[in-house]
Amino acid sequence: MPDEEGHPALEEIRLGPVLSALADPHRRRVVRVLAAEPEGTARTCSSFGLPVSKATLTHHFRVLREAGLIRQVSRGNSRMAGLRRAELEELFPGLLAIVAAEPEA
Amino acid sequence: MPDEEGHPALEEIRLGPVLSALADPHRRRVVRVLAAEPEGTARTCSSFGLPVSKATLTHHFRVLREAGLIRQVSRGNSRMAGLRRAELEELFPGLLAIVAAEPEA
Repeated sequence: MPDEEGHPALEEIRLGPVLSALADPHRRRVVRVLAAEPEGTARTCSSFGLPVSKATLTHHFRVLREAGLIRQVSRGNSRMAGLRRAELEELFPGLLAIVAAEPEA
Repeated sequence: MPDEEGHPALEEIRLGPVLSALADPHRRRVVRVLAAEPEGTARTCSSFGLPVSKATLTHHFRVLREAGLIRQVSRGNSRMAGLRRAELEELFPGLLAIVAAEPEA
């Protein structure tokens, strides 16, 4: 079952929610930015420059987290988001590269 | 520009509409079934056994067609659907394999 923060375990990650999460251009931008960073990078939610309200930002990160695309951790007063790169590559080989290759809109 | 039946040209196919199309389990089933057939196979829309009304079936095939995932042709009184396999593999390497590998729900 998902942990207390809503992260699914590897074996709970399903293609449907992953594709639904990636169907949104703002959420693809988060994944694209993280995919371009070194392995293990975590960033604050506000650092992605999404042109949305704080509530909408929180919603987008929840969708990404619950689908299994990102892992969020608290560091001090900040929530940091990192890509579940190795797990996603194991489950869906090539998917992150496809998202990473999309031109910036 | 898309042709008169709404098929985008290769260079018009975008990741966003493709992922939105694939976010739906019924539409993934169509792609999964076609991906398991020999190259060039075309099937009638009703042959996929989707448990939906005719209007909903038409909608799902329109979304797949306009995203660039399938090509539909008329043969006699039937509309046949085939996968745009080579074009999709060129644009989004590995994506069809990911969809094809999803277990049947």
